Amino acid sequence: MNEHFLLFDVGGTDIKAGLADSNGEILQVLREPTRKVAPEDSAEVLVSQLQQLGTRLQDRAGAAAASAGLIVCGLVDADEGIGIFSANLGWRNAPLKAMTSTALGLPVGFGHDVSLAARAELELGSGAKDEALRHNAVVMIIGTGIATALMVDGRLISAGGYAGELGHSQVPGGFECPCGATGCLETVGSAGAIAKRYFDKTGLKVGAKEVFAARAAGDEFAASIINDAVEALTFTMAQLCSSVAPEGIVLGGGLAQAGPEFFAELEQSLECRLSFHRRPRLISAHLGADAGLQGALILAREASGVQAGQAS
Amino acid sequence: MNEHFLLFDVGGTDIKAGLADSNGEILQVLREPTRKVAPEDSAEVLVSQLQQLGTRLQDRAGAAAASAGLIVCGLVDADEGIGIFSANLGWRNAPLKAMTSTALGLPVGFGHDVSLAARAELELGSGAKDEALRHNAVVMIIGTGIATALMVDGRLISAGGYAGELGHSQVPGGFECPCGATGCLETVGSAGAIAKRYFDKTGLKVGAKEVFAARAAGDEFAASIINDAVEALTFTMAQLCSSVAPEGIVLGGGLAQAGPEFFAELEQSLECRLSFHRRPRLISAHLGADAGLQGALILAREASGVQAGQAS
Repeated sequence: MNEHFLLFDVGGTDIKAGLADSNGEILQVLREPTRKVAPEDSAEVLVSQLQQLGTRLQDRAGAAAASAGLIVCGLVDADEGIGIFSANLGWRNAPLKAMTSTALGLPVGFGHDVSLAARAELELGSGAKDEALRHNAVVMIIGTGIATALMVDGRLISAGGYAGELGHSQVPGGFECPCGATGCLETVGSAGAIAKRYFDKTGLKVGAKEVFAARAAGDEFAASIINDAVEALTFTMAQLCSSVAPEGIVLGGGLAQAGPEFFAELEQSLECRLSFHRRPRLISAHLGADAGLQGALILAREASGVQAGQAS
Repeated sequence: MNEHFLLFDVGGTDIKAGLADSNGEILQVLREPTRKVAPEDSAEVLVSQLQQLGTRLQDRAGAAAASAGLIVCGLVDADEGIGIFSANLGWRNAPLKAMTSTALGLPVGFGHDVSLAARAELELGSGAKDEALRHNAVVMIIGTGIATALMVDGRLISAGGYAGELGHSQVPGGFECPCGATGCLETVGSAGAIAKRYFDKTGLKVGAKEVFAARAAGDEFAASIINDAVEALTFTMAQLCSSVAPEGIVLGGGLAQAGPEFFAELEQSLECRLSFHRRPRLISAHLGADAGLQGALILAREASGVQAGQAS
């Protein structure tokens, strides 16, 4: 049997859509901007956009999909198949799973983008040969913002979609956050915050990578911003050590590419915050930008009832 | 059938032992100091103490127990039946479940004292008629120290025994902690910390209750200590809102009896720390000091159920 699967990764800016074969090979990927419309129309417009992408992918490949996997940003109730809220796209309590299934005429597996990217990372990436990590881990994607997924006792926790919002947990020294709270980790510990704080002081429009380069060249302000980010990140990591006690913290996104020196700084700072707590290993994510589509593939397989490795 | 159950709640100071009938009525309770011996002997001495208590309880009642429930303090691996570590009592990686089962000649259900007291509270107390709470809740016992259990997506999380140590998570303004870390919630937010800080300043050896009374009488230092405790507690609660997003936080222990004004202060302070996060209800625990024995009874029933199923 050669089943195909449609994969959709809906972000605030772009939709990535892909078609995978039964071996899990992602044959084609389309990427287009998520259409911006009035909030009350957002779910219907999204689903029609997914339907068109799905048709194009299947037509190109000359293959009919057996099922689809759909992951979306924002607050998600995966069990109920509902997009609770997306600040960027506007829907509220939209039954996205059922709507997409009806539009495509296919069974659809549905979930939260970060959770599924994390599941892919733990099942297929850094956790593939690491049972302890697959059982108890935090996956933290540090880019413009900070997204987090918590794997505890072998299950990704959800709490109705509200779990794992560590980018919006308070840290000492945090600033006002667009979310409405004050002191969020994202305002100090993200790559976006490092770039923004450097710009605010110097007027130089650079990315976090350039701020690291500036530090290496002796720029003391760059060094202090990065030090603040390290302290903020390990403050939150230590909170997680006392609440969910991960065996490892898998770091992805732009900031995770800052190199081994940065990981060593994080480890040293985290160690100072702990006593009897279990020490998490800090691990660089193995999967890159397509972790989301890999996660959608996990859902698509589950929806079709085909497990990885079953080819019969 | 009139089955009886032996119940043991082993704390750092005392052991409470009880015998319950098949209706869940706890017929008798004995309490005696936990024997202090060299760490390497601690597990064997404990088990022999439990055996003697069990014999006395069964002799007095003229009834033979069908199973036992044993809960202990410290770090516990409930699945493996192991007491990982107790700072007060000294054991390390002791197979307490198997040892006690052998000594009593009974099936034994085994777990962590705080986790089981929390389970009892959620199944029989504040959560008995509150499904949302039974599914996603934090139970926080605020006394000399602060003990916490996390119920997430319908399961108490364990992380190999390391989860839920929120008393030892960092808060701004926290002090050096006997655990070895600096800034632990317990050093500011516990009833013990309130009493200690008041004593350090005034030389008056009183409990947290008297510090609340002093505040009511206009004592500004008492007010500032209590305010620090409120801020520290809600800082940690807000962390939990962004990580495990409870529907409710159940407060037990001495400080939970400080009255509705204290709860209102906590609610107000917590609200200031949140934005899109799910708002937890703050709830006073319904079960009192015997929550632990009630939790041991849950385990004892489960242990006897397994046995009955295996025998048929």
